[in-house]
Order: sequence, then structure tokens, then C-alpha cells
Amino acid sequence: MQIMNRFMITIEYDGAPYVGWQRQADGRSIQGEIEAALQRLSGETVSVHGAGRTDAGVHALGQTAHFDLASSFGRDTIRDGLNAHLKDRPIVILSASEAAPDFDARRSATARHYRYRILNRRSPPAVDRGGVWHVPHPLDVAAIRAGAGALLGQHDFTTFRSSDCQAKSPLKTLDRLDAERDGDEVIVTASARSFLHSQVRSMAGTLAKVGTGAWTIEQVAVALEARDRSACGPLAPPHGLYLIAVDY
Amino acid sequence: MQIMNRFMITIEYDGAPYVGWQRQADGRSIQGEIEAALQRLSGETVSVHGAGRTDAGVHALGQTAHFDLASSFGRDTIRDGLNAHLKDRPIVILSASEAAPDFDARRSATARHYRYRILNRRSPPAVDRGGVWHVPHPLDVAAIRAGAGALLGQHDFTTFRSSDCQAKSPLKTLDRLDAERDGDEVIVTASARSFLHSQVRSMAGTLAKVGTGAWTIEQVAVALEARDRSACGPLAPPHGLYLIAVDY
Repeated sequence: MQIMNRFMITIEYDGAPYVGWQRQADGRSIQGEIEAALQRLSGETVSVHGAGRTDAGVHALGQTAHFDLASSFGRDTIRDGLNAHLKDRPIVILSASEAAPDFDARRSATARHYRYRILNRRSPPAVDRGGVWHVPHPLDVAAIRAGAGALLGQHDFTTFRSSDCQAKSPLKTLDRLDAERDGDEVIVTASARSFLHSQVRSMAGTLAKVGTGAWTIEQVAVALEARDRSACGPLAPPHGLYLIAVDY
Repeated sequence: MQIMNRFMITIEYDGAPYVGWQRQADGRSIQGEIEAALQRLSGETVSVHGAGRTDAGVHALGQTAHFDLASSFGRDTIRDGLNAHLKDRPIVILSASEAAPDFDARRSATARHYRYRILNRRSPPAVDRGGVWHVPHPLDVAAIRAGAGALLGQHDFTTFRSSDCQAKSPLKTLDRLDAERDGDEVIVTASARSFLHSQVRSMAGTLAKVGTGAWTIEQVAVALEARDRSACGPLAPPHGLYLIAVDY
């Protein structure tokens, strides 16, 4: 039996041109691009397993993934070789390292960290057009923080879950949900061991409603308790969302 | 004689698809796009005068300009109307205000502030591909700061001046030239009443040489004293440069 070497990589990408992380029948995926680059680098047909299945248009500054190779490559060769084969695509390998045979990018993760960027000014974005959600109505960050507080901890997050979600249970523990102003931007940060499909965008869209005053803080708690997708605020668009880091 | 109303606008743009700020015989310019939008908004043929003639590919977060209109428009109508006519272009009017008849965006400026963004890590950029200069070799920020010190104050900046520069005198006073690290980025900030053509990119390219250790700090002073374009370090690429703000 052939001995396989397991590797872990950290990846940055602009999600705009892709159907999402996951390989699909139609359209280019980030997973597919990395698998094709690995094939060109190693000559092997490799499956790449990511920590988070980011949706179409969602970005990553620190997605992680693992894969197995029969060939022996050094970590720097993998990083630089993949980057050479990914050239001209908005996908970059930040680091590569050897991993234990039982390491699993998805199952071994202890925390995932997301950032949602809202450009909160009258004028639309020019420089960051594909990287922020434009909300022209002034946002009250203190109200957003108070609304976020209602979602912290362990809950049934059915309200904030896409109907496409494949998770067995809607029960998740939200460890952090915070908001801060940075110039014209309001940055929402969310951390948990794992999230439901569309959970961060569902929470960001709901919190924006609180920020504009359209929703009260109490309505967030009521929506959560409803355990009903139709009680959710609007889904925030994918291009404001970034998978920042995955902890192990 | 018709009474004209003078306006001042602040502009953000992604310079990538443009030949630069200034209208040219061939290619799309930022000035030309704003003039066309003003024509569609007001029905008048208007010349827009910018504070800084940014080169092809250079971005702005706070370019300023002035123009005259015969029609009377409120400041909010100008901002929102121009943005509507600039829709789908990476140019946005951040603010518009009435200006005195003798206000001149270029001549009345008391300071211009530029930022140069260097991505200083092994892997190339993915998310910020069009917004940073990638320098993979580790940069010593303290050395860059020391090299920058040699350029502060009033000097003949012929070494750091493009051969296309139309300024009458190469004598300029550099009020600020600083560098700081922000994660994987090294940010160079430059402030002066005015700059020569390509001066900031010439200084950024030279300081990067100091940062990698290819140049000593003394060589920066020698290059300045040479008053010779051929003594300059490499010109840093335009897509890392941002006109941040203009003071009046």
C-alpha cells in the first residue's frame, strides 16, 4: 500500500468569479481550481477538503484545507508551486505544512472566524466595490452590539439558517458576535466552532435592520425564538463576507 | 453676463481601468467620466479641474476638483446625481459643496496626502490584487523610516521626478514621509504642499530598495544630491498608490 503524505494549506481568495468553495457540475469553484493546480504540480488526482464551504461570492483571508499526496514535496514547494499554477486567478496559498494522517480541515477545526464589512455612508463604494455591502442609512453600532448580544451562546439557529443547509442539527454555539466602526465601515465579527449555512449573512442582514432602527433589539430575540426562517431579516449579500481564520 | 456657481467635489476612484485623471485624446480618463456625467446631469458642457493629476492606475480616496455650473443645483443633488450617472463605473462622488468664485482645487491646495501600500509577504495578493504592490522579500521598516528621513524638508527632487514632469521647478518641500507595518502590509505615507510627477512612486521604489537591504540609507541621500533621474531606485507600480486627501 502506498504511503500518502497529508498536507494542510491556508488560502486567500476573492470569491467574486466563483460558484463558491465547493466543486459543482457547472461553473468554476475554488476547490476545483486548487485541485487542478495540484494535478498540474504533482501529476496526481487529488481531492482537497476545505474547512468551510463558502458560498458564491464570499471571500477568504484564511480558509484552510487538507489533501493527500503520494509524491513527497516540501511545504515551500507546495505553496510556491500551487501559486505558480494559480497565477492570474484570485486564489493564493498563504502557507502549506505537513499534517498528521488523522488531521481533517473541517472536523478538526475548533473555531471559525468571519468578518462582515458594511460600507456605511451615503455614496456607494468605488475602490472596494466587490468587498463591502453598501448600507447608505446611518447605522447605530451600539444598537447592533446590543442586538448581537441576543444571539450569543448556544441556541437553535433555525431562523438564521438557509433552507439549503445540510447540517444535522440547527443547534450551534455562537462564541462572539461584535460590531465596531472603522471610518466609514461597520465591521461585524462572528466566531463559533461551526456555523449553519448562511448563518453569518443572515445575522448580518438582521443586525443591519437593528442598526437602521427598523428593528428593535427585542425583535432579534423574538426572531431567534421563532425558529422559523421567515422570521429572519434580509440575507446580507455575499461580497461583504470574509472567512478570516480557522483555529485547530 | 451669466452668473456661474462654483462647486468643489471630493472623489473616490479605482484607477485601474483609466488612463489617469486627465482627459486624453485616447482612452477613458476620470476627468472625462465626471465631465460626461455632469453634462448628462446639467445639460451643460463643463470643465472639471482636479487637485492632482493622478497617473494611469493610481487610485484616490479623496481627490478634489472644482467646476462651474450655470444651473443652480443643491450640493446633495450634485453628489447623488453624479453618482447616478457614474453608476457601474469605479468612480464615486463622496461630497459636493459650494465654493468661492476664486477657489481653485489645484492652486488653493495647502497639502496633498498620499498612501503607498506594499504587500510584504511571500505569497502574492488575492483579495487586494489591484490595490497593493507585492514585494516578497522581507522589508525592514526601521530602515525605510531612516531612508525616508534623508528626503524630508526642502530639496531639489530632480532624482525623484519623471522625465514627463511639467513643473517649472524641481524644488519641493516634503513635510512627511513615514512607513509603518500593518499585518502583512508596509504603508508609506507622504505629505507635501505639492509633488513632482511620479515623485511618490519614485520615493516608494527607492525606499523598498532600502527596506530589502539592497541600498544603504546613505545611498538615498547620495541619490537625492545627484539631482539625476538615473540615480533613482525603480519606479513603484501605480496600483499601490492612493491620493488620500487634499487640504485647503
